[in-house]
Amino acid sequence: MPQYDAAFQGSRGAFSEVASWELLGTNAQLLPCPRLEEVFEAVLSRTALYGVVPVENTLAGSVLLGVDLLIQHNLHVIGETVCRIEHALIGAPGVHLKDVRQVMSHPVALAQCELFFQSHPEIQAVPEYDTAGAVEKVIKENRKDCAAIAGSRVAEIFGGVVLEDKIQDHAENYTRFLLVSPEKREVDDSVRNKTTLVVKLANNPGSLFHSLRPFAERGIDLTKIESRPIKGSPFEYLFYVDLVSEPGRHSVVAEALGELKKISASVRLLGSYPMRPTKA
Amino acid sequence: MPQYDAAFQGSRGAFSEVASWELLGTNAQLLPCPRLEEVFEAVLSRTALYGVVPVENTLAGSVLLGVDLLIQHNLHVIGETVCRIEHALIGAPGVHLKDVRQVMSHPVALAQCELFFQSHPEIQAVPEYDTAGAVEKVIKENRKDCAAIAGSRVAEIFGGVVLEDKIQDHAENYTRFLLVSPEKREVDDSVRNKTTLVVKLANNPGSLFHSLRPFAERGIDLTKIESRPIKGSPFEYLFYVDLVSEPGRHSVVAEALGELKKISASVRLLGSYPMRPTKA
Repeated sequence: MPQYDAAFQGSRGAFSEVASWELLGTNAQLLPCPRLEEVFEAVLSRTALYGVVPVENTLAGSVLLGVDLLIQHNLHVIGETVCRIEHALIGAPGVHLKDVRQVMSHPVALAQCELFFQSHPEIQAVPEYDTAGAVEKVIKENRKDCAAIAGSRVAEIFGGVVLEDKIQDHAENYTRFLLVSPEKREVDDSVRNKTTLVVKLANNPGSLFHSLRPFAERGIDLTKIESRPIKGSPFEYLFYVDLVSEPGRHSVVAEALGELKKISASVRLLGSYPMRPTKA
Repeated sequence: MPQYDAAFQGSRGAFSEVASWELLGTNAQLLPCPRLEEVFEAVLSRTALYGVVPVENTLAGSVLLGVDLLIQHNLHVIGETVCRIEHALIGAPGVHLKDVRQVMSHPVALAQCELFFQSHPEIQAVPEYDTAGAVEKVIKENRKDCAAIAGSRVAEIFGGVVLEDKIQDHAENYTRFLLVSPEKREVDDSVRNKTTLVVKLANNPGSLFHSLRPFAERGIDLTKIESRPIKGSPFEYLFYVDLVSEPGRHSVVAEALGELKKISASVRLLGSYPMRPTKA
């Protein structure tokens, strides 16, 4: 049996840890990995049963590394969850906002708090590896002129103080995470309504249009489409696609996929799963 | 008259500078800007006549910041060029590869030379602001244990030495740049064959499929489609689209755009221009 229930990217306290709890329950044994590649390695080497992979953020768009790693590795998508992302400014105990001159965090988190930096021109944004790791750093080093941006719960984990809460530019900020497994999971047809696939289109004009026809004709909605370049084949692409159908109508999706296979260069089904978070 | 012919992102010697020369000739007066946002500001403030904007790389995919800034600003696309990207390892004079322990460059350049780092486990990759700027730094500081990755011509500019040439993983590595202007340029119908637009789809299933129909039915090829999130509207997207038609058949594109406007929430035409590099 794998030693861990799931591997996630980031330090303890990262948003990916919250996503893992939502997917697997708060008793799950979790392996924090510095790099997202290591999440895939942990699952493939059976160190962890599952991997938790961010694929899109509603402000920044697709998490391209997540999409690329899903394309490269032969893992199955068996569930998803969506986490609300709220950023807090966190410092070591005794630090005051007026003394802060540097704020560290993941570049995406820094970019999502642009208005905060505009209203504090005395503060410099410093990119760091991940949000929770930045908090750990400022608190361990007991910096008086430096704070970090992360979810407010990270303050408790490392004994820090929230200097200002909800400093992100947009209140509506969500990240979507997929749960991946080396094994396919047969999901009850009555609950699976989301499907993820990777398509290589035939190389002719209109091929994208024609490949969408099988879904459009059946009222199956595309909720995400992302083209990724094929390395070594300039200006050729793979398309990552998410579909939503009505629960209990998976046979209609299967029919559409059958049609798509006939007219594309290749189709790989990554998984069909319930849209709502699943408890394993 | 603007002081500069064009603004580009990066230091002297950056690939964007080469793209600017290809678009405007080597006599063009160019303004190097540290950040891509400043390229847009230079054009909008009439400090530079044109801006040069990277939009995609054949290994890394879309340059999302470039696409987002094109969406945000009301500038017109009047030309494009495609530059071959080859990376060299550059050091200060007298530096030997065997002594190098750190290599600095733009994160995308570092990622494109992964095999080099795998075969040199003693060397640490260090992210920097831009490729040419990293070279300038290692040479100015006369570092003996540090080198930088950039185009080989950057070595000459700063008096450095090429320690190893063509170290990128894939020989086929191109970046596409657009030339943007505050004014629309009326291009001769016989040469313009590429069109860039931004579409907000109607909010119903199959809307992407239906919005591609006007082009598919006329044999107009989509060469790029990129969905970008709308900030504040979670899981809603704008689509950036590039089309290619036959030269002299722009009226057919105009007809398709007219149809698209009827069935989408909004359509903005960024420009129609010749696919080949243009000399201004």
